Amino acid sequence: MAMEKVKKYISQIQNLDADAMARTKTRLDALAKPPGSLGALEDIAVRLAGISGKMVYDVARRCVIIMASDNGVVAEGVASAPQSVTCVQTVNFTRGLTGVSVIAKQFNADLHIVDVGINADLNNPAVRNRKIRKSTWNIAHREAMAYAEAVQAVCVGIETALEAVKDGYTLLGVGEMGIGNTSTSAAVLCALTGIPVDQATGKGAGIKEEVYRHKMEIIRTALKKNKPDPRDPIDVLAKVGGFDIAAMAGVFIGAAYARVPAVIDGFISMVAALAASRLNPVVKEFMFASHASSEQGFAHAAQALGMEAPLNLHMRLGEGSGCPIMFAVIDAACAVIRDMGTFEQAKIDEQYVHAIRDGVNFSPRNT
Amino acid sequence: MAMEKVKKYISQIQNLDADAMARTKTRLDALAKPPGSLGALEDIAVRLAGISGKMVYDVARRCVIIMASDNGVVAEGVASAPQSVTCVQTVNFTRGLTGVSVIAKQFNADLHIVDVGINADLNNPAVRNRKIRKSTWNIAHREAMAYAEAVQAVCVGIETALEAVKDGYTLLGVGEMGIGNTSTSAAVLCALTGIPVDQATGKGAGIKEEVYRHKMEIIRTALKKNKPDPRDPIDVLAKVGGFDIAAMAGVFIGAAYARVPAVIDGFISMVAALAASRLNPVVKEFMFASHASSEQGFAHAAQALGMEAPLNLHMRLGEGSGCPIMFAVIDAACAVIRDMGTFEQAKIDEQYVHAIRDGVNFSPRNT
Repeated sequence: MAMEKVKKYISQIQNLDADAMARTKTRLDALAKPPGSLGALEDIAVRLAGISGKMVYDVARRCVIIMASDNGVVAEGVASAPQSVTCVQTVNFTRGLTGVSVIAKQFNADLHIVDVGINADLNNPAVRNRKIRKSTWNIAHREAMAYAEAVQAVCVGIETALEAVKDGYTLLGVGEMGIGNTSTSAAVLCALTGIPVDQATGKGAGIKEEVYRHKMEIIRTALKKNKPDPRDPIDVLAKVGGFDIAAMAGVFIGAAYARVPAVIDGFISMVAALAASRLNPVVKEFMFASHASSEQGFAHAAQALGMEAPLNLHMRLGEGSGCPIMFAVIDAACAVIRDMGTFEQAKIDEQYVHAIRDGVNFSPRNT
Repeated sequence: MAMEKVKKYISQIQNLDADAMARTKTRLDALAKPPGSLGALEDIAVRLAGISGKMVYDVARRCVIIMASDNGVVAEGVASAPQSVTCVQTVNFTRGLTGVSVIAKQFNADLHIVDVGINADLNNPAVRNRKIRKSTWNIAHREAMAYAEAVQAVCVGIETALEAVKDGYTLLGVGEMGIGNTSTSAAVLCALTGIPVDQATGKGAGIKEEVYRHKMEIIRTALKKNKPDPRDPIDVLAKVGGFDIAAMAGVFIGAAYARVPAVIDGFISMVAALAASRLNPVVKEFMFASHASSEQGFAHAAQALGMEAPLNLHMRLGEGSGCPIMFAVIDAACAVIRDMGTFEQAKIDEQYVHAIRDGVNFSPRNT
């Protein structure tokens, strides 16, 4: 049932609008600047046109979608913070106290906070209750969730993105909260790409060297025991992932289906983006990387997805905290295509050249 | 006379406020996040405190100072655009049509446009007339300017920064307009650091391979003929620089003297920053890099100054166009130190840990 729905969305994602992109490229080349000299801002403008079909796309209404859930693997002592922090910080998102809260506010972005599996009963109207179950199972012993639950989590993500678009949002960010989710993300990354565990695994919020070695051992065990099938990303998410990662993958799919840009945050978000792109490679065209997380596996996940993060801020907080800063970069790209003058408007032409060459008293305000 | 003034400003720059920095670091570590997990945002917040003496520094009033001037070396055919473009684009800054105009507007930054040596009589009240002379001399044949003129240009930069601070601006960006100034910047970079001309020289706005080789030859000739003294940055600016670069170096000095942060734009701005730091190394502490320009010499200039640019946008427009985007990153840092909650406020404490561990129905809104 949910699988049919998810399959439908995945299969109905359309390619970028090549015509709108070509028109935008032509316009960018006519603007008063050396061709290509605004680099990534020009690339962003072109891709936004491909996504929206419009040369000038309005990104004023933006939100960061935060998928919050707990991970059974924390029983193995792989995380630096207690599991309760997932719930506490999720509430703190609603109170405006966390990193993503204050950064999102600075850039006029709303937070959409979704409980997909927090290990507590959270009666908070500011948190959307789409709980699949209280916490995944411990991947060191068994699969994180049933296959059907992974499908359901992806579905929650798709629906959350579609609701946001229906509510008028034109730019999404994808963040998370879930103690233990750098472990599950590393496991998913290894399963999807085949890279070694020591390359995919980082120190998360800040574990000691011996805990780090133990964390890698647990991830190796989880991969060995659960045997995720790399050809089936849903199986990978179910066996060694989390409700958060699966739902985030769903947000990327929903954004692509609804044709709105989705900004990737850090490591966990990048792994979710990679999983989504394995379900349909076209989804990638609707994504924008933000910052290069300093969590170890990030660079490998980004490379696997063929993404370059334009912000190098040595951040590793998660929550979606990097997304709003990328919103600002996207704002700059939108300003360029919307407001810059062309060579013609800028009057960079022979008349001006002659005026100066011949020593004329050049006062453009009188022309 | 001007030299005495410049020397006074250079010698009276005070170190960062270590106490304010320590207090800010303590506060950042008390915020509800893993210590250091906001990376560069935390570093920025600490340095802003060191600059301003305040833990919460208001950067709402910001401007990009654009130093515009012409370079005699364009007679050698080293640039892709005619010299007249310097004047035309300077006027276009006032019309809101250029790259920096629209990006600055997006991030609520004003433009302060200063004519320090445009090769035309510009009667435009929106452009400040601080012209030293119409265009420098051709460095392929003689020095760019007299030593006293270089001092005067630095002085114009200092005074422009001080005026901005007096007018209430608390955050400055440093940009330029001057056809031919990637050639002069490369020459200054080589003179200051001793790196080879082929490493310092790029293709500017977009010259062809043979023009590029010719450009390098001209820079080699200029260095050989003028023999700039690397121990005297003013001599380097006078012999192979430009009025724009010298004035920009002055802005960095003025900002440091007045204790406001100054954001570096691309290659030319970074070379000016390097020259300023050679006049007094403390000036560097008041600077923030913005984007890593794709102009060849940028990376070498940044390395010589020991700066890492947090934005990787493959931009190479100049004008100061990267500064306002960095203003947004600085906004994020200010939001973090100003608005984030502490661990205590976030209630990440034992009570919450127990509530969940014991399976209590956890409803933080009732606590």
